Amino acid sequence: MHSTQPALPFSKALRRRWARSGSLLCVGLDPDLRRMPAHLRERSDAIFTFCKAIVDATHDLACAFKPQIAYFASARAEEQLEELARYIKATYPEVILVLDAKRGDIGPTAEHYAREAFERYQADAVTLSPYLGSDSIEPFLSYRGKGALILCRTSNPGGSDVQFLDCGGTPVFEVVAQMVAQRWNALGQCGLVVGATFPKELGRVRQIVGDMPLLVPGIGTQGGDIEATVLGGKTEEGGMMINSSRAILYAGDGEDFAHAARQVALETRDAINRYR
Amino acid sequence: MHSTQPALPFSKALRRRWARSGSLLCVGLDPDLRRMPAHLRERSDAIFTFCKAIVDATHDLACAFKPQIAYFASARAEEQLEELARYIKATYPEVILVLDAKRGDIGPTAEHYAREAFERYQADAVTLSPYLGSDSIEPFLSYRGKGALILCRTSNPGGSDVQFLDCGGTPVFEVVAQMVAQRWNALGQCGLVVGATFPKELGRVRQIVGDMPLLVPGIGTQGGDIEATVLGGKTEEGGMMINSSRAILYAGDGEDFAHAARQVALETRDAINRYR
Repeated sequence: MHSTQPALPFSKALRRRWARSGSLLCVGLDPDLRRMPAHLRERSDAIFTFCKAIVDATHDLACAFKPQIAYFASARAEEQLEELARYIKATYPEVILVLDAKRGDIGPTAEHYAREAFERYQADAVTLSPYLGSDSIEPFLSYRGKGALILCRTSNPGGSDVQFLDCGGTPVFEVVAQMVAQRWNALGQCGLVVGATFPKELGRVRQIVGDMPLLVPGIGTQGGDIEATVLGGKTEEGGMMINSSRAILYAGDGEDFAHAARQVALETRDAINRYR
Repeated sequence: MHSTQPALPFSKALRRRWARSGSLLCVGLDPDLRRMPAHLRERSDAIFTFCKAIVDATHDLACAFKPQIAYFASARAEEQLEELARYIKATYPEVILVLDAKRGDIGPTAEHYAREAFERYQADAVTLSPYLGSDSIEPFLSYRGKGALILCRTSNPGGSDVQFLDCGGTPVFEVVAQMVAQRWNALGQCGLVVGATFPKELGRVRQIVGDMPLLVPGIGTQGGDIEATVLGGKTEEGGMMINSSRAILYAGDGEDFAHAARQVALETRDAINRYR
């Protein structure tokens, strides 16, 4: 067990956030220098400045922020991600911070990834791959109160290659959902990642896992249907962090980009709430 | 296609390295500050200095070096990993550099991870998870000549949770091996990660994939049997990068740690060659 226990465990903090914000929207932070407004691009802290502006413009509309670490890593911007995490935790402590990293490795290595996610970047939850099984997840669960969001049915076309393999009548992603619900979630720290681009499978996963939280990417640029997503995955308290990244971040490319982002975030939150 | 094409494609460079070094040993670089010699620990560049000493002491005994990025990330040491990669490429350009990162994400994100591995860290090959399927691998393959080493049957106990699920008589890891061999390896850029702790499955994978290179972790501290591993996975030219990390890195904890590491690397290389 680790000493960085949050005041409120991930699952409780998320339920409280759903209730207080009235929003299931997760704003994905995928800062791509090539798509940022021109007036920011040349700054040495362009990535932090861009993300901070998005966070300030959307915090009241979001249940969660989800920085995607690949965008920081490819730009040598780990320190800007640290700064962003510090800013979010200090300024908007009730908004859930999900680090999207999709890590998965053997136990001793997973301990280091857990330290990266929960200590270095102060995440409340992190996305993980199930391919290496239980002992690759345990080091994350040993941070009591932190969340582990495990890939189940992803939003991309190739997701079917492995996730849809037929195991005696049950596809791999459903076996993963069962495994997480019945075994890995003993302390209530788990959630699943299920793409909005497959609403039927989303409904199936919801049946399997009860009210476990789902992180649902794939609306917005990826084209997932909001109505089908909400109807398939909602619970009484909320049930989902429905993520949109690019459609919000790059809604505008002028000096008013944050205002444009807020408008799209507002419309998306409201479109989601229409079907709750 | 990307402009950072290596002079020699990964698979050819690896075959040449097997031939010239007479070694199948891959030295894994998992620098853990808590286990390093005391005289290094307080240095601000302890991780680079430790890894450089290991690299200098073992380069002629190894076909490959494999830094595990989690150990650098948890210690905020990305710049030391960059420096280490630069040092290896400049000083020992024939030794294959594998970045162990086990990345796996949707296409646009995978592009950023590919840039991280191949441009930022100059890796010749990177380890990847198959869980998100073909479009999560393609951005890596678009770096022609670079290698993609895809998780198949991992060395840890929990590996069976997903990899051993039965798909109509064939376990998931064999389906992954078939998929990589028949579809993803069209340009000869792929390899598979198969643990030495499961030599029977290693032999099965070798039958499926012909002479495709295998990265084989799990000997040394993890206890995989060297004889069974070599007999199960060898090809005429070599066929495997057999990895040992902790048993070599932490063979000694005094000022002569690099000498102790060399001794274990030497014994391991020779133990492998006894069965070729």
